[in-house]
Amino acid sequence: MDIDHLMTGLGQRARVASRAMARAPTAAKNCALEWIADALERESEALRSANAHDCARAREVGLSPALIDRLMLTEHTIAKMVAGVRQIAALPDPVGAISHLNIRPSGIQVGQMRVPIGVIGMIYEARPGVTIDASALCLKAGNAAILRGSGQALESNRALARLVSAGLAAAGLPADAIQLVATPERAAVEKLAMMTQYVDVIVPRGGRGLVEALIACARVPMIKHLDGICHVYIDDAADLEKARAICDNAKTQRFGVCNAMETLLVARGIAAAALPLVCRTWRDKKVELRVCPESEAILARAGIGPRTRAVEADWRTEYLAPIVSIRVVDGLDAAMAHIHTYGSAHTDAIITEQHAHAMRFLREVDSASVMVNASPRFAGGFEYGLGAEIGISNDKLHARGPVGLEGLTSLKYVVLGHGEVRQ
Amino acid sequence: MDIDHLMTGLGQRARVASRAMARAPTAAKNCALEWIADALERESEALRSANAHDCARAREVGLSPALIDRLMLTEHTIAKMVAGVRQIAALPDPVGAISHLNIRPSGIQVGQMRVPIGVIGMIYEARPGVTIDASALCLKAGNAAILRGSGQALESNRALARLVSAGLAAAGLPADAIQLVATPERAAVEKLAMMTQYVDVIVPRGGRGLVEALIACARVPMIKHLDGICHVYIDDAADLEKARAICDNAKTQRFGVCNAMETLLVARGIAAAALPLVCRTWRDKKVELRVCPESEAILARAGIGPRTRAVEADWRTEYLAPIVSIRVVDGLDAAMAHIHTYGSAHTDAIITEQHAHAMRFLREVDSASVMVNASPRFAGGFEYGLGAEIGISNDKLHARGPVGLEGLTSLKYVVLGHGEVRQ
Repeated sequence: MDIDHLMTGLGQRARVASRAMARAPTAAKNCALEWIADALERESEALRSANAHDCARAREVGLSPALIDRLMLTEHTIAKMVAGVRQIAALPDPVGAISHLNIRPSGIQVGQMRVPIGVIGMIYEARPGVTIDASALCLKAGNAAILRGSGQALESNRALARLVSAGLAAAGLPADAIQLVATPERAAVEKLAMMTQYVDVIVPRGGRGLVEALIACARVPMIKHLDGICHVYIDDAADLEKARAICDNAKTQRFGVCNAMETLLVARGIAAAALPLVCRTWRDKKVELRVCPESEAILARAGIGPRTRAVEADWRTEYLAPIVSIRVVDGLDAAMAHIHTYGSAHTDAIITEQHAHAMRFLREVDSASVMVNASPRFAGGFEYGLGAEIGISNDKLHARGPVGLEGLTSLKYVVLGHGEVRQ
Repeated sequence: MDIDHLMTGLGQRARVASRAMARAPTAAKNCALEWIADALERESEALRSANAHDCARAREVGLSPALIDRLMLTEHTIAKMVAGVRQIAALPDPVGAISHLNIRPSGIQVGQMRVPIGVIGMIYEARPGVTIDASALCLKAGNAAILRGSGQALESNRALARLVSAGLAAAGLPADAIQLVATPERAAVEKLAMMTQYVDVIVPRGGRGLVEALIACARVPMIKHLDGICHVYIDDAADLEKARAICDNAKTQRFGVCNAMETLLVARGIAAAALPLVCRTWRDKKVELRVCPESEAILARAGIGPRTRAVEADWRTEYLAPIVSIRVVDGLDAAMAHIHTYGSAHTDAIITEQHAHAMRFLREVDSASVMVNASPRFAGGFEYGLGAEIGISNDKLHARGPVGLEGLTSLKYVVLGHGEVRQ
């Protein structure tokens, strides 16, 4: 079957199913989620055997151990999926809530109702867990979804998607509400991102290459982020121990995540005191230091190394590795200018005891998450209390930052009248 | 100067100005708005003389009287601009408000701060009033803007934009925050819609042709609507007098507006009673009736004409004229199916006394505005209490329906810590 025809069919069925999902009662959606969680436990053996096929093929084609690790379903990863689905079932249903219902001088009442977006196109790499997370979030928010995972995870995703469809059917919901694109062909991704009549938003989850390719071709709006070049700025008025603890956590708690810190900015007035303290911790944890000339001089005096000289490209690089770039700046304004020039509008933090500096940083730094005296590693749906997240957005329209259930919904106006007409 | 270079310059200056606007105090923004309102009054003569040049040229090239009417600045239209600007000055400043600031188990406080979007690209036709409306809204919401009006209004827009820049400067704000694209070349529009690094959102205001051309080329996200194919559905359980009054108002209060009704759907059970009542009023006001076979039979029996037979294309047409299409449907489900098939997700209304039908229509109709027993003509920023609107959105992401100050802003996450780190 050709891709166009295949994808159009998926799109049409998704659009039809989305109408039924939009009016589905909360109880039915939760029932489907509970069914899916139970089935994941019950079918754990079968899922792992489907996954074993994918892993075997991945080993044959020489996939790296790190990628095979991501691909693999274990007892532990399945238990995490189950817990995730049950958490989403326990979250309040965002759909149908009416806010700000005010009476206008004309007599009409005007409010806003939270409604599902419609059809979500999810495009992701070889992490089968995303199949379940995304299904559960889309389902709870009353959306239909078309899932396009990596070809490397096709057997696993097929087995998982069958489970999801069975759960939907068991709850009296359309089994088509969550569909998997069951072909590894790349053309399917492009077609999905072009079908504006059937797909309301694309959520890509993967590396920069995937997102950039989609930006080049997509006509459907996207909820996306490209980079997490996150900064910590140690202000003149910083508490040194907070600075040390937060820098340590921001850089070393995990390396390969988008909310890890990549660049340290430090005010000139405190650099001689702060840099040796912070960098000693990093050196002990084998973090590579890429430094500006002023930092270089300070660290040399303190005898902290090895260090290399940072180049322009360092300020624009998301290392996702035990590497950090370090720059001394004049103060708050220079720090914010650096962040706006080189940052990716993901998450940026200031360490300061000065209220006015904290307030200026909060107001003026134009990033999805802006923090005072806290580790950027907190940026995420669970830490923010949103529940699970379907992705992160660095864009300014619609959802910004971690995107949870609410980001998968929209607000429409509702007007309650009693026969009023416009004068 | 070539267009690329010209537009890049505008973009760079807008981006720089947007930073200053984002941190501008409310008092400064209101001071600029008051200055602009005063100057519009003071310079009324000069503005009308600039406008006279545009109108003379428009007559020379044979522009239709209706379009020249739109283009013309009169004492009345200038007074309306002044009142509009003063109203926007009086609206609360949306920027900086922090909502939902909750303490999380980790100790951090997480909330959302309303912030400007950044740089707005406004593309519109030969209505000089939009230059002032859009400037005032973007300014109040703390954004920079690049305005691209029609070449036909170039002299008028230049004079108005000079006033706006002077007002910004008088209030200590960057004069570059609002810039006019002072060339009539079409390539400037395309370039504006492509500059994702400098422009955060495009708001087109104009006919279907303009918006479709932009959809084909834009890479910057848009807040837009294409059509207003608005429906009124008279339910089995409708109050006939409400139905008559609302249908009359929805179709005839104004014809050329996007929230006027284009299609009447009527439940079979009430059609014989409702259609003659509604259509007699329309006939008396010379509204052309395009009817389905069942409506035809009912109207023939009632002796109401002239009527023509509706064809498939009628259900998809925004007449913007004294024409209405009429269709008898089985009931609520068939009406909603018709709306989802042929509608444009703008504004749709049900006339019913049945609570369950009203609630189903509200919940299930997937349009920007959904109404019960009220005229769709109410869909708009002023009637909804939002103040002035920069445009209307039929899309589901970000703003939906009338877009006012809030739609020109975004929410970022703010995190207040005390040195917390992630475990």
